[in-house]
Amino acid sequence: MPEGFRPGRNFLFVPGPTNLPESVLRAMHVPSEDHRSPRFPELTKPLLEDLKKIFKSKDGQAFIFPSSGTGAWEAAITNTLSPGDKVLAPRFGQFSHLWIQLARRHGIEVIVQEEEWGTGADPEKIEAALSEDKNHEIKAVLIVHNETATGVTSDVGAVRKAIDAASHPAMLFVDGVSSIGSIDFRMDEWGVDMAITGSQKGLMLPAGLGILCASPKALSMRADAKCTRGYFELGDYIAANENGYFPYTPAVALLHGLRASLDRLFAEGLDNVFARHHRLAGSVRAAVDAWGLALCAKDPKWHSDTVSAIMVPEGVNGSDVIKLAFERYNLSLGAGLSEVAGKLFRIGHLGDLNELMVLSAVTGAEMAMKDAGIDIALGQGVAAAQEHLRKAHGQQHARIAAE
Amino acid sequence: MPEGFRPGRNFLFVPGPTNLPESVLRAMHVPSEDHRSPRFPELTKPLLEDLKKIFKSKDGQAFIFPSSGTGAWEAAITNTLSPGDKVLAPRFGQFSHLWIQLARRHGIEVIVQEEEWGTGADPEKIEAALSEDKNHEIKAVLIVHNETATGVTSDVGAVRKAIDAASHPAMLFVDGVSSIGSIDFRMDEWGVDMAITGSQKGLMLPAGLGILCASPKALSMRADAKCTRGYFELGDYIAANENGYFPYTPAVALLHGLRASLDRLFAEGLDNVFARHHRLAGSVRAAVDAWGLALCAKDPKWHSDTVSAIMVPEGVNGSDVIKLAFERYNLSLGAGLSEVAGKLFRIGHLGDLNELMVLSAVTGAEMAMKDAGIDIALGQGVAAAQEHLRKAHGQQHARIAAE
Amino acid sequence: MPEGFRPGRNFLFVPGPTNLPESVLRAMHVPSEDHRSPRFPELTKPLLEDLKKIFKSKDGQAFIFPSSGTGAWEAAITNTLSPGDKVLAPRFGQFSHLWIQLARRHGIEVIVQEEEWGTGADPEKIEAALSEDKNHEIKAVLIVHNETATGVTSDVGAVRKAIDAASHPAMLFVDGVSSIGSIDFRMDEWGVDMAITGSQKGLMLPAGLGILCASPKALSMRADAKCTRGYFELGDYIAANENGYFPYTPAVALLHGLRASLDRLFAEGLDNVFARHHRLAGSVRAAVDAWGLALCAKDPKWHSDTVSAIMVPEGVNGSDVIKLAFERYNLSLGAGLSEVAGKLFRIGHLGDLNELMVLSAVTGAEMAMKDAGIDIALGQGVAAAQEHLRKAHGQQHARIAAE
Amino acid sequence: MPEGFRPGRNFLFVPGPTNLPESVLRAMHVPSEDHRSPRFPELTKPLLEDLKKIFKSKDGQAFIFPSSGTGAWEAAITNTLSPGDKVLAPRFGQFSHLWIQLARRHGIEVIVQEEEWGTGADPEKIEAALSEDKNHEIKAVLIVHNETATGVTSDVGAVRKAIDAASHPAMLFVDGVSSIGSIDFRMDEWGVDMAITGSQKGLMLPAGLGILCASPKALSMRADAKCTRGYFELGDYIAANENGYFPYTPAVALLHGLRASLDRLFAEGLDNVFARHHRLAGSVRAAVDAWGLALCAKDPKWHSDTVSAIMVPEGVNGSDVIKLAFERYNLSLGAGLSEVAGKLFRIGHLGDLNELMVLSAVTGAEMAMKDAGIDIALGQGVAAAQEHLRKAHGQQHARIAAE
Repeated sequence: MPEGFRPGRNFLFVPGPTNLPESVLRAMHVPSEDHRSPRFPELTKPLLEDLKKIFKSKDGQAFIFPSSGTGAWEAAITNTLSPGDKVLAPRFGQFSHLWIQLARRHGIEVIVQEEEWGTGADPEKIEAALSEDKNHEIKAVLIVHNETATGVTSDVGAVRKAIDAASHPAMLFVDGVSSIGSIDFRMDEWGVDMAITGSQKGLMLPAGLGILCASPKALSMRADAKCTRGYFELGDYIAANENGYFPYTPAVALLHGLRASLDRLFAEGLDNVFARHHRLAGSVRAAVDAWGLALCAKDPKWHSDTVSAIMVPEGVNGSDVIKLAFERYNLSLGAGLSEVAGKLFRIGHLGDLNELMVLSAVTGAEMAMKDAGIDIALGQGVAAAQEHLRKAHGQQHARIAAE
Repeated sequence: MPEGFRPGRNFLFVPGPTNLPESVLRAMHVPSEDHRSPRFPELTKPLLEDLKKIFKSKDGQAFIFPSSGTGAWEAAITNTLSPGDKVLAPRFGQFSHLWIQLARRHGIEVIVQEEEWGTGADPEKIEAALSEDKNHEIKAVLIVHNETATGVTSDVGAVRKAIDAASHPAMLFVDGVSSIGSIDFRMDEWGVDMAITGSQKGLMLPAGLGILCASPKALSMRADAKCTRGYFELGDYIAANENGYFPYTPAVALLHGLRASLDRLFAEGLDNVFARHHRLAGSVRAAVDAWGLALCAKDPKWHSDTVSAIMVPEGVNGSDVIKLAFERYNLSLGAGLSEVAGKLFRIGHLGDLNELMVLSAVTGAEMAMKDAGIDIALGQGVAAAQEHLRKAHGQQHARIAAE
Repeated sequence: MPEGFRPGRNFLFVPGPTNLPESVLRAMHVPSEDHRSPRFPELTKPLLEDLKKIFKSKDGQAFIFPSSGTGAWEAAITNTLSPGDKVLAPRFGQFSHLWIQLARRHGIEVIVQEEEWGTGADPEKIEAALSEDKNHEIKAVLIVHNETATGVTSDVGAVRKAIDAASHPAMLFVDGVSSIGSIDFRMDEWGVDMAITGSQKGLMLPAGLGILCASPKALSMRADAKCTRGYFELGDYIAANENGYFPYTPAVALLHGLRASLDRLFAEGLDNVFARHHRLAGSVRAAVDAWGLALCAKDPKWHSDTVSAIMVPEGVNGSDVIKLAFERYNLSLGAGLSEVAGKLFRIGHLGDLNELMVLSAVTGAEMAMKDAGIDIALGQGVAAAQEHLRKAHGQQHARIAAE
Repeated sequence: MPEGFRPGRNFLFVPGPTNLPESVLRAMHVPSEDHRSPRFPELTKPLLEDLKKIFKSKDGQAFIFPSSGTGAWEAAITNTLSPGDKVLAPRFGQFSHLWIQLARRHGIEVIVQEEEWGTGADPEKIEAALSEDKNHEIKAVLIVHNETATGVTSDVGAVRKAIDAASHPAMLFVDGVSSIGSIDFRMDEWGVDMAITGSQKGLMLPAGLGILCASPKALSMRADAKCTRGYFELGDYIAANENGYFPYTPAVALLHGLRASLDRLFAEGLDNVFARHHRLAGSVRAAVDAWGLALCAKDPKWHSDTVSAIMVPEGVNGSDVIKLAFERYNLSLGAGLSEVAGKLFRIGHLGDLNELMVLSAVTGAEMAMKDAGIDIALGQGVAAAQEHLRKAHGQQHARIAAE
């Protein structure tokens, strides 16, 4: 068979980009249009408003940049802070690490709370650090809600309580790139000031949009924020978005896709979306148990419903599992990054997924692990995942019947 | 969740229409064009020529109708036969039955050889019938190569030998709708006079094209064939196709799709395509064995590499399995038709498929069977299918390495 | 520049296939689906019902075949008539000719009323012929509503009156391939028994669907109609369509496209669609006048709102205009067919068109005519067409304002 | 007709985003994929290499950001300069103005050379300014190659000569957003150090990519450049691109589109693309002459081949022309910005365009101008444009024949 040809579909189970629903793909297959036409705001104004629902925010303002999520990180920091400002940031994985690094590039002094990879933000430590900061030099707390590298979800509500317990005015910035739209996120309730996501995860779009939701408090910091900003200057957006326009050419095709994506999420119902992610994630965890393997997440309280990082046994290289899965079964798994490189592989289970899709990832991972020499029995993990989903299905129906 | 909304993909495992490769879908997303333009033949002439390769025919002529495969059945009969002509046709499933019925509508006298459903054409009986036909009143033998209703593949080469052994001039007409492009088909070698297929099976296109390949002998019968024909008159096609045009508006978008589909099949290599179908079909059969169930096909020699019809145990309705698979797991399976209604369900495993795609059908069927009360253990069939594919993979690689 | 490469869009102004709206193209970009699934009728049942509105029929039944319009011609004839039956058919162009030819293939005795090309059906002659047919041997009158070859629209309402005036029970069959969805068509009001169209004209779809609407009277003829029919047997459709299914695999992608197309036509409003076609056709006719050329249509009463056949001056070959338009300006015009080959070229102005689209055809035709040596001034025809559209626009707005 | 429904296509003649070729649209209709897969570099490595050809650069390095062109402006500045650095920048339109503004946000001291809107960069003044700058405090000269707001093309080659004549080491940064891929651009020959473009103009893609080509000299400035940069840090790109990867999730769908776009440009041949733009632009200018109107560009030497800014007569508001064109004829024209708001309208004529496409813009603009009360005769401008294109066509063919 010629190199390069592969029959059938790729099974995409990296933790983003995620699988695109057909309706979203179709919605983006559109001719170019004039983004300064009088009709353009008919698309954009409801879109910006509806986007806030994904963050569960009424008070905030949503922004859409032609960028990746990294750009939205930058927008959050540069529009609110000044060089030399202090922020507090727990680090427990590659993405919390990169955000910290980005903040430092902008001259921010980041007080890093190192947490073991496989755990997440520690509200007690945060409360302690803030309590000690009598002069309120810490301007913001940076939390990665769902650390994609380790499959760990932190408790943002608890972080908010910690900040309040310390009676500290620090803003709360949250990276929700791999959680928002998939795991419950409550911007207003948790008092989040900057919530960040990208298009290519829970929003089931191609990469290309950095998305931000800013609280009124965050926006009020703009005037005094001295960080250099040009491309990501929120002021330009606030002025142009007011009338449904953008300061420079927006990624229009993706905006149409976002409309379709939001329609899809709302049609299912956000809470149903979250419940589905929990159900599907549960089936992956059931398989991991059945294989006798461990997650990178140290405790069930850290379990992520969007990505599972699965530790491979000593003597096995996680990269081999990934390579075999891709070459033999056309299954794309996520690699271990940085500290955990080679020690794990990741199954992303977020976005437009259903039971058989997730089971196919389990099936393929099982085969690839066996191919890589891991001592598991074929069918073992699959059966556990099947059983989990059959039970969950029964419970779901019982619940609906009871309502 | 609102009625009608379903997250994720449908798993389509009916034995046609089959899954569309993305490259085929894209190729059909084209503006309208003038099918009488001077450039149109640049598309059509190579297409009609390349299409013959799918039939393994050099001597024949290929025809493409805007129709379903049923239309190609009609074209084969009406362009070669006259009302009152006799044909010999084994019947062993719903599609052999329907073809016989269609021939009768056109005034053909069909001598039916009834075969048990689950078996196929019997070359010995065909030879006997033709040997008895001293006056050569039988003008054609009609064989369904792959009976989609029961998952049975007949041996067309053996039928050719039977005709030759009887020294009988009858033409050989073969329905290859669910075999051509997926199971080896050798038009010239087997002396097939009319080979019929449709776009929506091995060719991985949407339904809408009836496709015919006619031998020179079949085409020579046109002059004397008295069956009424208008839309399916081959003479119109022969005249127009000569220059790359069509007698009436062709289904242009599907022609572009066909180009992409042929390119794909040739890129993989036809014999690789057949080997892949055999490998994937083997995994389904391994699962059926592991479940302790039986195929409708009575003997391995009848096993179809494109569809498996799986008998459900007494007391279980196959339709319940199909319904549960669709409702709970978004898995589309094929139903038992006519004589075997309720007694079986079918997994189509043809077209643009790979290992994990077929395994997902096995996984979902396993769950639906359990949900329907069939006494099987979860993971059992999946494990057998996984094992089959892992071994096949090893053999395939060993073979490639040895070459 | 390499042969084959052409920048920009092709300007498609053949009288079908017509330009596809983006929404229709998108709607057809869908994965395969099981056309026997329990959800399939959610698409098909409303579709078959809504389709009748395009014919302005409440009493009729609509049918959709995987075929071209030619197939629907065949379905109309073979499901209602018997070999030897007489029908009356005016002939005044290539398409009325071809329909007659098709009827004859099915053994129908066609009484042809020859009309000059450039005119249409003559109700007086029809009344006379029917009045003479005391024994009611004429079973049907076949009218091509809009003769695509000459740009002539016949008055079907007047034909109905002629039939009634003759108190004759003949059925009325109308080819509306290039009228339905673009020119007012009133099936029930005009007492049409079989109305025929295809997907690739007013319905703005790719070719591939033959569409028929049959009156109850037409359907009642099925029992006694002896014409051979297999693929186009309406009985199979009536039985299967009852539950939203089809007798063999339907062209599912096109059904989704048809849904989008109907939604589009209904959104604009059928009568607005007709008015738009009239307005746009008027601009082409204004250009023809300004060029000092004549239409093939002999009199304004024959003017077609979907296609204009423009006579080229003596000494010029219409084919040269077409060739130059295509080669130099990427403009596809329609050729003169049969009797009028070389004597004219045609501009199709039907389907998803607006002012500037039609003006681009006028602009390009003007240049190609000049290139072919026709003595016209550049800008002349365009100016007349522009003026027509500007005035029409004013009137349209005045009308809307007055309402 | 319901508000919001418009039959037919929109005629998009803003100076970007430009019309998308169907092949580009199709290429972007792809499932998500893992941008860290071993196969991803098969796409990206040739892409980054081929992209340089668009800039006519062998020595440079190309970068692709998920951003708009504005982002590429920022990347050019922040990766080479430090706060307080001086740059020299002529200002003669909205886009030269905005780039200056962006540079200032990053702390750059911009020495602005004001030029009359309708003219461009003045090489003599640049030479003079640089000659005066004995201490070489000016680190870069910023030129907008094609000022989209006024339809003016500056002579970048002459700017290079001016810099050399002054024996000044300043870098040369060029905004080629509305020129590159449409108007000849010679990065290496002209000694351009940073060339900037976006996806939505000559590259015929949706907005969403900021594209940069950097000279070795520009890249060597990175080490000492003190401007704050995070998202647009070239160092991250250099490291990741080396192996065909990206520092954060790239806009993969657009990368596939870019591949199709480059293939298209190379198939036509870059110099043919430029010649086509010149020919089409000439036809618009011929129409402007025929209307008796003036371009914003003060002299033929400033004429842009990608956008014409047409001055409306005193007493007429250019915005009315634009509004009428959009509402009545579904034609999107560009507005006058800032200083020239209301005084002109713009026809963008770049990207995937041919003769009839451009003529449709002329036709529609002519009607809208007349509707707005401008005293012109219908057909006048169109005829001049037609004539220009017919002649150009003849010359083009004569040239090809002579070769």
